[in-house]
Amino acid sequence: MTEPMTKDRVLIFDTTLRDGEQSPGATMTQEEKIEIAELLDEMGVDIIEAGFPIASEGDFAAVSKIAERTERAVICGLARADFRDIDRCWEAIQNARRPRIHTFIGTSPLHRAIPNLSQDEMADRIHDTVSHARNLCDDVQWSPMDATRTEWDYLKRVCEIAINAGARTINIPDTVGYTAPNESADLIARLLREVSDSSEVTWSTHCHDDLGMATANSLAAVSAGARQIECTINGLGERAGNTALEEVVMALKVRNDLLPFETAVDTTKIMNISRRVSTVSGFPVQMNKAIVGKNAFAHESGIHQDGMLKNAQTFEIMRPADVGLAGTSLPLGKHSGRAALRAKLADLGFDIGDNQLKDIFVRFKDLADRKKEIFDDDIIALMSLVAETTADDRLQIESLEVVCGTGGPAKATLKMRVDNKSRVSTEQGDGPVDATFRAVRAIHPNQAVLQLYQVNAVTEGTDAQATVSVRLEEDGVIATGQSANTDTVVASAQAYVNALNRLLVRRQKFGPGSDVREVSYKELS
Amino acid sequence: MTEPMTKDRVLIFDTTLRDGEQSPGATMTQEEKIEIAELLDEMGVDIIEAGFPIASEGDFAAVSKIAERTERAVICGLARADFRDIDRCWEAIQNARRPRIHTFIGTSPLHRAIPNLSQDEMADRIHDTVSHARNLCDDVQWSPMDATRTEWDYLKRVCEIAINAGARTINIPDTVGYTAPNESADLIARLLREVSDSSEVTWSTHCHDDLGMATANSLAAVSAGARQIECTINGLGERAGNTALEEVVMALKVRNDLLPFETAVDTTKIMNISRRVSTVSGFPVQMNKAIVGKNAFAHESGIHQDGMLKNAQTFEIMRPADVGLAGTSLPLGKHSGRAALRAKLADLGFDIGDNQLKDIFVRFKDLADRKKEIFDDDIIALMSLVAETTADDRLQIESLEVVCGTGGPAKATLKMRVDNKSRVSTEQGDGPVDATFRAVRAIHPNQAVLQLYQVNAVTEGTDAQATVSVRLEEDGVIATGQSANTDTVVASAQAYVNALNRLLVRRQKFGPGSDVREVSYKELS
Repeated sequence: MTEPMTKDRVLIFDTTLRDGEQSPGATMTQEEKIEIAELLDEMGVDIIEAGFPIASEGDFAAVSKIAERTERAVICGLARADFRDIDRCWEAIQNARRPRIHTFIGTSPLHRAIPNLSQDEMADRIHDTVSHARNLCDDVQWSPMDATRTEWDYLKRVCEIAINAGARTINIPDTVGYTAPNESADLIARLLREVSDSSEVTWSTHCHDDLGMATANSLAAVSAGARQIECTINGLGERAGNTALEEVVMALKVRNDLLPFETAVDTTKIMNISRRVSTVSGFPVQMNKAIVGKNAFAHESGIHQDGMLKNAQTFEIMRPADVGLAGTSLPLGKHSGRAALRAKLADLGFDIGDNQLKDIFVRFKDLADRKKEIFDDDIIALMSLVAETTADDRLQIESLEVVCGTGGPAKATLKMRVDNKSRVSTEQGDGPVDATFRAVRAIHPNQAVLQLYQVNAVTEGTDAQATVSVRLEEDGVIATGQSANTDTVVASAQAYVNALNRLLVRRQKFGPGSDVREVSYKELS
Repeated sequence: MTEPMTKDRVLIFDTTLRDGEQSPGATMTQEEKIEIAELLDEMGVDIIEAGFPIASEGDFAAVSKIAERTERAVICGLARADFRDIDRCWEAIQNARRPRIHTFIGTSPLHRAIPNLSQDEMADRIHDTVSHARNLCDDVQWSPMDATRTEWDYLKRVCEIAINAGARTINIPDTVGYTAPNESADLIARLLREVSDSSEVTWSTHCHDDLGMATANSLAAVSAGARQIECTINGLGERAGNTALEEVVMALKVRNDLLPFETAVDTTKIMNISRRVSTVSGFPVQMNKAIVGKNAFAHESGIHQDGMLKNAQTFEIMRPADVGLAGTSLPLGKHSGRAALRAKLADLGFDIGDNQLKDIFVRFKDLADRKKEIFDDDIIALMSLVAETTADDRLQIESLEVVCGTGGPAKATLKMRVDNKSRVSTEQGDGPVDATFRAVRAIHPNQAVLQLYQVNAVTEGTDAQATVSVRLEEDGVIATGQSANTDTVVASAQAYVNALNRLLVRRQKFGPGSDVREVSYKELS
């Protein structure tokens, strides 16, 4: 990181909904994508890459909705170097207040070999597609995928072509997470120095964490002159994931002496969005994850502080409040009223209407009757639960009774409505969850494969609510369901049924095989 | 990272058992520490920091046992700048084939203020304690804790004092995870250049991941001249953890063009030890963790490969086999014999005796009867299970029956032996796990607080084994229990009872309050 001379602004380009969602198993519903986009906009992200419109009808619909609703951020859609892709992308984002088309092509020798294009043929394609995009939209971003493994002369040439054709942002992806920080800085510095008209565009960095260096590589690029960082919440993304938004934003804040750049991100909103992305993607954040892991501020937990720690700064470079980490205090109990609950929810970043408050209040009272202490995390889990089930669901659990233990196979008796017709089944299985899932399948036969089953206690204590995540895959379509309950078996049943309901919605809308995600996603950075 | 001139050897110093275990909640038993030390030794780690002998009787005993048993690696114990600490450390490691004393003191202004020492007083203390250590042991390492926030002149001075007093390794800790890669490189380069006799010692780097840059900082230090990296498996450690061993080792291998250094680590043993550390610490590894996350090689899973992917190299910089990731093939089934099981276990890195094979084979057959496909991960879970329960345990579950569901409170009937006396209790609770835990407490009353409850399905499918981790805290002592079973409720009961048995062992050995961990650990880097 060379010494930068002036205080400057770095744009935060979030691709949680595109590169993050591309992560196997992290597929989100349209409603979830809209919610995450709203949270990103509220926290001050500059550009939201909302999806890849041509990949599927679902992606198109989600990008369109986000484009219409977002108030502040630029809404970006992804498109391959193909007129059809670019047109479809524009169709999805054209109603955004500030739309951006992001088009890309793999420029390294390995990637050029796939469409079998010569250097000249690819150069022509880049010129034509960027020009086409620019004719539709003022704000065009272009990426040479696998830039870090592209020959220098060719990389310089194609960047110049894209700039001449009207791209305003050139994004340099380290697609395989191969780069080290000094290389990342050197590459950006050389592009700025040698590419003609380099000062006419914003240079962007897009790193992957395969060798654990995405954050350092992104910051090195910024100190060399990049002014946009592409990143995702929790570092979600294929393989080892993308650069984590929370890490680059907090590093820029904590080390502003070394990296005198500013972002528009309100860092106090980090924890809430991190939790939401973890829940909807079904990708838990590990305890020792930087910034957003449960242990990241463990010295603050009060559990293991000792008398020798005279000065918090001794081991602390950030305050928990800087990232929006509320203490696990217990300001709410059995006797708390609706106003107190609404205030608490606002405090936690949930802005809800009266109807939703009514619903959550009933659940809150129910929980308060069963649970001694209500923590912030309990409230957050309740909010997820409310978002998870709707009256439109085709499958609805009416009752469940399970017997299990060491004495023999577990037995589950399930009563469930399928399209408003009530059915009952009793099944045996290996353990209560297996028996329950078998009962669901007896009532609603399906071929979905269970890819992930995970339970986490939300708070401490044996009466804690457990959140269960279930990820199912059927004919290449993936759906994740979640549920929270103090009874893990009931939560498991509900999460499984939620995931099945989502599969049904997708099947109904698009029919099997209509999702082109599988053939197109592997091409992306 | 400046250009290094020669191929060189970098020492890998693993501190999973010291700085890693210091992580709140990651406490390991003596048996677990010995097992992890054996795995570290087998994989070719150069130095194993086995613990902090004066911290507790348990730490002392674990370090002594590891010192006696380890065949190849240097065994290191930690000691503060205090004769008593150093003597106790030497007592624990003296029987090692290659012992090392690691002594440290906080040298930054904030840390000097805690013992209220002037610069000169601290300098004298450093001279005296390093000399004392060197009189006991040829191999002495010294660390100026919080080095990255220590004034340059004073840092230079104390490093010179430690070298003169006989330290052979000087370790530079970035205690608060504050540094950026160029700073890390600059500091090491300056120390090498300006410290007198700097070439007489090995320089070491010790980084924390608070800003997500531990790996890049460690590698930057190496390219500037450091020849030892302190790190932990899975990046375990306080707050956001330490540098992850697997990341620096694989980065040195994959980017040997840029970082022409060698380690002695057999990288094919990485996955196995990563899984074991995750299990015994109760700290799961997130899906998108670099190198060892479940998704790190997700492009290899076969699930989402598409026809356009003509060349594996397109998206791949390492092969899964390089880190010991076996495919989730299913070479074992109902009809597999003992020899096949032994071969499979050897393949997965488990070298077991005949008695243990007999035990695991019974469990394997039992599982094969209940489960369609036996994956590698199932075998690994079985192995953990065998390690978890012993005949000496004071609490032993005999039988459990649980009824739960939506109809009312869950009910658990538990039969358990306590010191060989059989007792029965039936309890109600919020959900099957709460009811079961209440039944355990009815039979064996205790004040332990549940800090963590977590369930993961080991493999795909609803008949998967689930591993349950339970972490308990009583009077400042923490114990983690694990268990694996296709019935999550049975696994939960067993994991809870395992954790209670561990608490009993600690209480019996040392009595409440005898563990000095709490007062001393916060002082460490």
